[in-house]
Amino acid sequence: MIGTLELPSALEATTSDLTLRRAHRDDLLPLLKLLADDPVSTNRGDEAVPEDVTRYAEVLTDLIQDPSNELLVLVSPAGELMATMQLTRIPGMTRRGATRLQIEAVRVSSLHRSSGIGSAMMKWVLESAAPATGASLVQLTSDDARTDAHRFYERLGFVGSHRGFKYQVA
Amino acid sequence: MIGTLELPSALEATTSDLTLRRAHRDDLLPLLKLLADDPVSTNRGDEAVPEDVTRYAEVLTDLIQDPSNELLVLVSPAGELMATMQLTRIPGMTRRGATRLQIEAVRVSSLHRSSGIGSAMMKWVLESAAPATGASLVQLTSDDARTDAHRFYERLGFVGSHRGFKYQVA
Repeated sequence: MIGTLELPSALEATTSDLTLRRAHRDDLLPLLKLLADDPVSTNRGDEAVPEDVTRYAEVLTDLIQDPSNELLVLVSPAGELMATMQLTRIPGMTRRGATRLQIEAVRVSSLHRSSGIGSAMMKWVLESAAPATGASLVQLTSDDARTDAHRFYERLGFVGSHRGFKYQVA
Repeated sequence: MIGTLELPSALEATTSDLTLRRAHRDDLLPLLKLLADDPVSTNRGDEAVPEDVTRYAEVLTDLIQDPSNELLVLVSPAGELMATMQLTRIPGMTRRGATRLQIEAVRVSSLHRSSGIGSAMMKWVLESAAPATGASLVQLTSDDARTDAHRFYERLGFVGSHRGFKYQVA
């Protein structure tokens, strides 16, 4: 939990009035379903299989307690978990001591894509979460396979100025 | 300070025996000099001017106390600060609950570039820091302008599979 964020927060999307809130332990199974509802994720092993549930539950508990991280979920009026994202607050010396707010693991349910949900979440990050955490830079990386997502981020004002490198530890 | 890292650590580079250790408050001015010793950084405002020292000092204090971050310096036997980098430990649900170790703000003094220092630091991250922090993925972004750095990371086994997006908050 990043303490300075004001949550829950109402988000206006094209579909209905949605609530962005901190993830709870009870969100575990819907969260796993959401991660598995994405071909790039499933290729990396997020398949929501029963033998992985304990591991994900431990991580969820860690994230809820972590003062530098915030795991968020977007829920419908009926309580359906429609989307998720993780924020990490990273202080740093460069860029005149700029604090960065990093976005990871953005996932929108396949039932609700292209409905304005992702855009509403990003606008909340840029307009509310960044100032509330003292961040002057918001950053994320997006897999080269997600070309639609790249255009989406550019429309929001992100600049794709960097190459993102990953190293899988053996 | 990320508690699980064993530091200081001796690093073998081509020049001499160097020590990688946690940054102290006394490292402030040499650190600012190192940040300003890079054209991409100075273009972003890291110019080591006196009026910015207080801001950087506050960030350095924050980083030293932060349990998710580690600001490191590489020093020569004579005590010269030759390089720096920041590590951030990021737990996450995706990739089957993978912990990420993120590298930011890698800077090597212009007097000591291409001497094996950067490579020795990266190998320490991949072979020592990643296991010590439970990370299965090491990640970083590198400005498109740093084409030499991109080849350097690829030689170490990083895969440039992502686009890195930044948003400057007004």
